[in-house]
Amino acid sequence: MKAVETIKQQLDYIFYPNSIAIIGASRNPRKIGHQVVRNLVRAGYEGKIFPINPHAKEILGIPAFEKITDIKDEIDLAVIAIPAKYVLETVHECGKAGVKGLAIITSGFGEVGKKELEDEIVRTAKSYGMRVLGPNIVGVMNTRHKVNASFCPILPEMGDIAFITQSGALGIALVGWTKMNRIGLSSVVSVGNKADVDDVDLLQYFGQDDQTKVITMYIEGLHDGRAFVNVAREIVKEKPIIALKVGWSKRGRLAVSSHTGSLTGKDTVFNAAFKQAGIMRAETFQELFDWALALSLQEIPKGDNTVIITNGGGAGIIATDACEKYNIKLIDVPAYPDLEAKFKSCMPDFGSARNPIDLTGQAGHEGYNKALKYALTDDRIHAIIAIYCHTAVTDPMAIAEGLVDAINETQSRKPLVVSFIGGENVIAAINWLREQGIPAYPSPERAVFAMSGLFERKEILEKLNQHT
Amino acid sequence: MKAVETIKQQLDYIFYPNSIAIIGASRNPRKIGHQVVRNLVRAGYEGKIFPINPHAKEILGIPAFEKITDIKDEIDLAVIAIPAKYVLETVHECGKAGVKGLAIITSGFGEVGKKELEDEIVRTAKSYGMRVLGPNIVGVMNTRHKVNASFCPILPEMGDIAFITQSGALGIALVGWTKMNRIGLSSVVSVGNKADVDDVDLLQYFGQDDQTKVITMYIEGLHDGRAFVNVAREIVKEKPIIALKVGWSKRGRLAVSSHTGSLTGKDTVFNAAFKQAGIMRAETFQELFDWALALSLQEIPKGDNTVIITNGGGAGIIATDACEKYNIKLIDVPAYPDLEAKFKSCMPDFGSARNPIDLTGQAGHEGYNKALKYALTDDRIHAIIAIYCHTAVTDPMAIAEGLVDAINETQSRKPLVVSFIGGENVIAAINWLREQGIPAYPSPERAVFAMSGLFERKEILEKLNQHT
Repeated sequence: MKAVETIKQQLDYIFYPNSIAIIGASRNPRKIGHQVVRNLVRAGYEGKIFPINPHAKEILGIPAFEKITDIKDEIDLAVIAIPAKYVLETVHECGKAGVKGLAIITSGFGEVGKKELEDEIVRTAKSYGMRVLGPNIVGVMNTRHKVNASFCPILPEMGDIAFITQSGALGIALVGWTKMNRIGLSSVVSVGNKADVDDVDLLQYFGQDDQTKVITMYIEGLHDGRAFVNVAREIVKEKPIIALKVGWSKRGRLAVSSHTGSLTGKDTVFNAAFKQAGIMRAETFQELFDWALALSLQEIPKGDNTVIITNGGGAGIIATDACEKYNIKLIDVPAYPDLEAKFKSCMPDFGSARNPIDLTGQAGHEGYNKALKYALTDDRIHAIIAIYCHTAVTDPMAIAEGLVDAINETQSRKPLVVSFIGGENVIAAINWLREQGIPAYPSPERAVFAMSGLFERKEILEKLNQHT
Repeated sequence: MKAVETIKQQLDYIFYPNSIAIIGASRNPRKIGHQVVRNLVRAGYEGKIFPINPHAKEILGIPAFEKITDIKDEIDLAVIAIPAKYVLETVHECGKAGVKGLAIITSGFGEVGKKELEDEIVRTAKSYGMRVLGPNIVGVMNTRHKVNASFCPILPEMGDIAFITQSGALGIALVGWTKMNRIGLSSVVSVGNKADVDDVDLLQYFGQDDQTKVITMYIEGLHDGRAFVNVAREIVKEKPIIALKVGWSKRGRLAVSSHTGSLTGKDTVFNAAFKQAGIMRAETFQELFDWALALSLQEIPKGDNTVIITNGGGAGIIATDACEKYNIKLIDVPAYPDLEAKFKSCMPDFGSARNPIDLTGQAGHEGYNKALKYALTDDRIHAIIAIYCHTAVTDPMAIAEGLVDAINETQSRKPLVVSFIGGENVIAAINWLREQGIPAYPSPERAVFAMSGLFERKEILEKLNQHT
């Protein structure tokens, strides 16, 4: 018998394995067992890979084993992708082989009524000290450890956001979506039937994972809402948790029960529970990641005074409206004549320093750079929203560089969100800004929404501190 | 004196000119007068171009004239891009030269307090029978007539959506944005100071423009709200009008008055007026064009019964929630056993025909094609939302083709909106679908929102018919 391990130790075998066995590894590229091996190789996984296949000498050039008990090395993680009827026996063998953790991709258990078999698998695994992720999952990914033990063909960009998804299909689609949008993730985990490892375990785990700053979740239903709230409430003190809880509509609840078999309670209950736990609730996956991006890249504002820097009156008005919608307080710049004079020095006469600071359509690298430096270094300003509306005469990349230069020159960590509006070359600038660690968005409303996430986080932390 | 012309005739000179003079045409690429000539050439404008420049023999190879009165041909449109102090005199000359319509790009009039000069320019123009667009505008574009008489460097994609914008900068940025997103426009017009041609004129004009099916507007303020509502109410009987009215927040109102000098009333007044006129109100520019795309490409549903076809349970749940949010009624498929059997025949056993119709992650070209054909041809279904969540094993383009094939095979015009979720290759499929005339979006919520626009339009028409 092993000594009792912490959840951190148990799940490190799954998220940071030094060796991975793939049971059901196949030479047929259409088989999931083949894809997992291929995806590990493509991801550049540096640990040992052990394909298990009784009929193959090698898979993709990697020596294969007939059965897992033939492996003499330590095996941290076994990924199981064989028909459901063979899984229980295989779990026994994994236990005998000293495997530390299991990810069962195979489906056909609790979700089709075979809950007893599923429970027996978990009991068996636990008797050997193994935790089980799944069954019925896409797999698990860790960008820094270069693990793609899943049938999702691509590994996300590296970043600080952990993503826990109850829908495997949505998980795969969103890995592609986050990659395209330069949203960096630390880990992605599909929870499937949550027969053993569930949301509570994963919250505890990512709460302690050094590579994760923000935890995002796609939730259809929860097994134990009370335990979830209690754990979340602790984790939230250290890291933001953002949840997209779907199935809130009457008909959506029915769809949830037919999809994952999970019962989902009334939405008002979830709302109250999330609020109590300090979980931020997103309404769409775009909101989920818009917030997560800002929270993973930016610090929390030290006060409420926000300034909008723009080159277009219209875009400034849109951002101003959005600030009111999201309760963001715009500082009254003309109340501070020295500050107004500073901003006035960044623009032609017909500009405006009334907040929105309208640098006018002529503003390029220099105008944005200068105005942002004033905003970053003035202690009366606590948060900055910079907006660029693409014009006929300015280069979005030059302006993006002006913003990054201002941060480097001031070494300020004051929270900043950015919106660039326009076509292809604007998207290139947004992607580059995201790569530089600046949360940039293609519309002013989304940038302001992202900033609202930083303020909501600030409020949550303040409330938690009052209660302790 | 000319005979009195209709607004259609007057503005056709501006939107469908057979000849364009550019006053202030320059050899210097940094000058707006140069850019307008260049943009007309690049757009492939097929009418006559007359650059006016007292010091140049030609601009970009096109013979230039010293003054507009030197031109012996008919001149439909004169674009004015010279310093403000010379504009009045030039308008006189345009009148003498028999110019039919004016677009004054030059700024420095009403927006900086020179309202009297602006008024005199308009009086002068009118005395010669010319209508004035502007001053203080980006210019005017018409995609089918290949007119880009503006300093916006690109012409939008061809389409059926007219876009009237009170912000020139936002207009330019959104032309790039719509082009990138394959949203086709008929005309784009920046209204500037609205010294003469205003929103009311433009509504009347686009109401009669054969190339325009949907009218979109970015509005900061209106001169004459009552006239606007009265005209809009008539136009709406024929064509949808969608407005993004900004400056609704307290501070946004101040920003509007400092940006365009227009006073903007209380937002509740606008809301009531828009509702009375049957104008659809968008909250963001993304919503504006999400609705416009659907309304320009799809017909209005003949009833309320909507079906969701998906390959992923999660995406189906998200769409179901969104349908409840936007009051879209999902048909209870199992209540019609023959219909349920049809859909069941499109999927493996573990799929669901309960609506969302879950074809499962295995669904490819054939599954989507077959299910969509059943939905298109069954009279109990009136509207269709098709969702594809990118998987590891299916090709988004093949599925997009499956959808288009179903439409071609059935020749059905039943309204359809689509969402494809994923990365780059999914965006390619979305763009292709848009080019094929199918409103496709990168998230289920946006597709459902687009469908809600078709239903809102249906309701507006029903209400208008009750009142007449």
